[in-house]
Amino acid sequence: MIKNIMTELLKIEFPIIQAPMAGGVTTSKFVTEVSNSGGLGMIGAGYMSPNQVSEQIKEIKQLTTNPFGINLFVPNEFTYTENEIKSASQLLQPICEQLHINQNDRLEIPTSNHLFETFNDQIKIVIEENLPVCSFTFGVPSIEIIAKLKHHNIILMGTATTVEEAVEIERLGMDIVCVQGSEAGGHRGNFMGEDEGSLVGLMSLIPQVVDHVSIPVIAAGGIMDGRGLMAAICLGAMGVQMGTAFLTCKESGAHQVHKEAILHAKEDQMVLTRAFSGKWARGMNNPFISELKNHEESLPDFPVQNTLTQHIRKAASSQNNPDYMSLWSGQSPRLAKNHTVEALMKEIVSEAKKINQHLTDSIRE
Amino acid sequence: MIKNIMTELLKIEFPIIQAPMAGGVTTSKFVTEVSNSGGLGMIGAGYMSPNQVSEQIKEIKQLTTNPFGINLFVPNEFTYTENEIKSASQLLQPICEQLHINQNDRLEIPTSNHLFETFNDQIKIVIEENLPVCSFTFGVPSIEIIAKLKHHNIILMGTATTVEEAVEIERLGMDIVCVQGSEAGGHRGNFMGEDEGSLVGLMSLIPQVVDHVSIPVIAAGGIMDGRGLMAAICLGAMGVQMGTAFLTCKESGAHQVHKEAILHAKEDQMVLTRAFSGKWARGMNNPFISELKNHEESLPDFPVQNTLTQHIRKAASSQNNPDYMSLWSGQSPRLAKNHTVEALMKEIVSEAKKINQHLTDSIRE
Repeated sequence: MIKNIMTELLKIEFPIIQAPMAGGVTTSKFVTEVSNSGGLGMIGAGYMSPNQVSEQIKEIKQLTTNPFGINLFVPNEFTYTENEIKSASQLLQPICEQLHINQNDRLEIPTSNHLFETFNDQIKIVIEENLPVCSFTFGVPSIEIIAKLKHHNIILMGTATTVEEAVEIERLGMDIVCVQGSEAGGHRGNFMGEDEGSLVGLMSLIPQVVDHVSIPVIAAGGIMDGRGLMAAICLGAMGVQMGTAFLTCKESGAHQVHKEAILHAKEDQMVLTRAFSGKWARGMNNPFISELKNHEESLPDFPVQNTLTQHIRKAASSQNNPDYMSLWSGQSPRLAKNHTVEALMKEIVSEAKKINQHLTDSIRE
Repeated sequence: MIKNIMTELLKIEFPIIQAPMAGGVTTSKFVTEVSNSGGLGMIGAGYMSPNQVSEQIKEIKQLTTNPFGINLFVPNEFTYTENEIKSASQLLQPICEQLHINQNDRLEIPTSNHLFETFNDQIKIVIEENLPVCSFTFGVPSIEIIAKLKHHNIILMGTATTVEEAVEIERLGMDIVCVQGSEAGGHRGNFMGEDEGSLVGLMSLIPQVVDHVSIPVIAAGGIMDGRGLMAAICLGAMGVQMGTAFLTCKESGAHQVHKEAILHAKEDQMVLTRAFSGKWARGMNNPFISELKNHEESLPDFPVQNTLTQHIRKAASSQNNPDYMSLWSGQSPRLAKNHTVEALMKEIVSEAKKINQHLTDSIRE
């Protein structure tokens, strides 16, 4: 057992949160396994409809009485032109040909209004289902929504990539801040300032954030084992949020091809790209990323580009073709294993204890 | 005292190495202070002539009997065209005007041959002076040079930014590998593969390197205090190399304007640029970097661009103008303090002990 005010707040045995990976990874069985193994399982609900959210929460409640949480994408205003869509579609055409599919000519690009409505409906369900924990990425919810959720005693966690963002999350009355280091896989969660300034490594980010907020700090990015957990705690974090380490576990809903790619990858293959979604994200370099590399600054913003590439990612998945899938991963793929969630959790805790002993032995008066 | 095979090998009290910052920071007084405080002081000899190297080593030997080391730049072949120089000079012209200086029209761009000669002479002096430790950046020396230095029992340390580079350093028979995380200030030390792949955060880089080499690993990048030291050890490193943390100390030879800039900076202001030297390096964003940002990919390679900007940096320094100085810094400027080297070392060690106690208290059966 590793105890601190964060584990007490979340009522979990170990200070380990499973990153709410969106896009089918966080199946009910998977979330349940994490929560049953002493961590906090999280539903990655970013791309889910309110109905899907409601169904999955009910399903998990059937499977475990332990606490689990949910992550929502905070919608942002966005604009695009027909020309932007046209030139992005042209860039995607050769990839469609490779996959023997047609361009999607009945694109349903969501409107900002629609995204805000979905978000509000998701919030309603979180309240109705009385979920213990709700986290947010891509921004912070309005003070009205925060007040409503806090009125129902739901623990709120924001995602920050800089000290400034962490301070904002505390100022708004959220309970926990998850700091995302530059090592992290998947989408960047920055919502203030420049993209480049938000790429801060955890060794730098954790202590600087800890010195500027008083709410518990959770560290995310490249953490895969007991070494990373203990390092994060040394730097002042109360716990960790792990994505890639859970993604390759047997129970995760990630595509087998995605798991295999990470299990055989090296740290220097993980690059930043906005080619898949219009938002910067870290994943394994592949032909999709490299073919669009010289054009990625001009691609439409999230979620427009995400909509444009949807049928490509879907076709690549069903053809088991890693060349055109989004193989999100943090910078520590060499530490990935294909074990069970329970084995991962046990190994982390036993490693943490050994490290503590090693430290005590090496520090002497 | 923090003891392990690395501190025993280097005969130092604490596993803390002062990064060999080149360009006037590592004065004899400063290096001596680090070595006298229980760390390993290092001469940043990258830009020094063999004579200067010889003189400084003799000077430090007068000041301390404790071990200290030196860092050398491994020269690389380079080419350039007159056109490249011409267009780079045109880009620098408005900056010269801002500083009221003329373009340097008697440029002395070194030849590859000259750099290799200087390097060989530096190696000779290291052997003559029987320095205990010699580290390298920007590449690895030839096996002949390594054999010669090892014949004289000089401890050799290489700089790696990926697992592949660390493995190469061990394979060549070097004794220690210093892994440079993406957090690090100053020049990137990558010498294999792509620039982007070499930007790995320490949370990811340390454990992956540790799993692939058997020589001691030192961690560098964003580490400024006892939290960073303990985190690095948790991740499997034997110790740390700190640059920015020492740079702002009272005894360092860094320009007062440089120290002040770091002491008031935020983590998201530290950007990567190749505008100063032709090699990617991390420093504080300023007009020099932002004015050249859109052209930096086309600037000549190191050391050509470095030679082209020399008079600009010199003029900016003598005018106390931070706008056009190279304000190298890692990603943790908020942790920087203007204390003495001795106070910094004492604080780190006392913080490390407190953290160890905290860990022991929070991990329970």
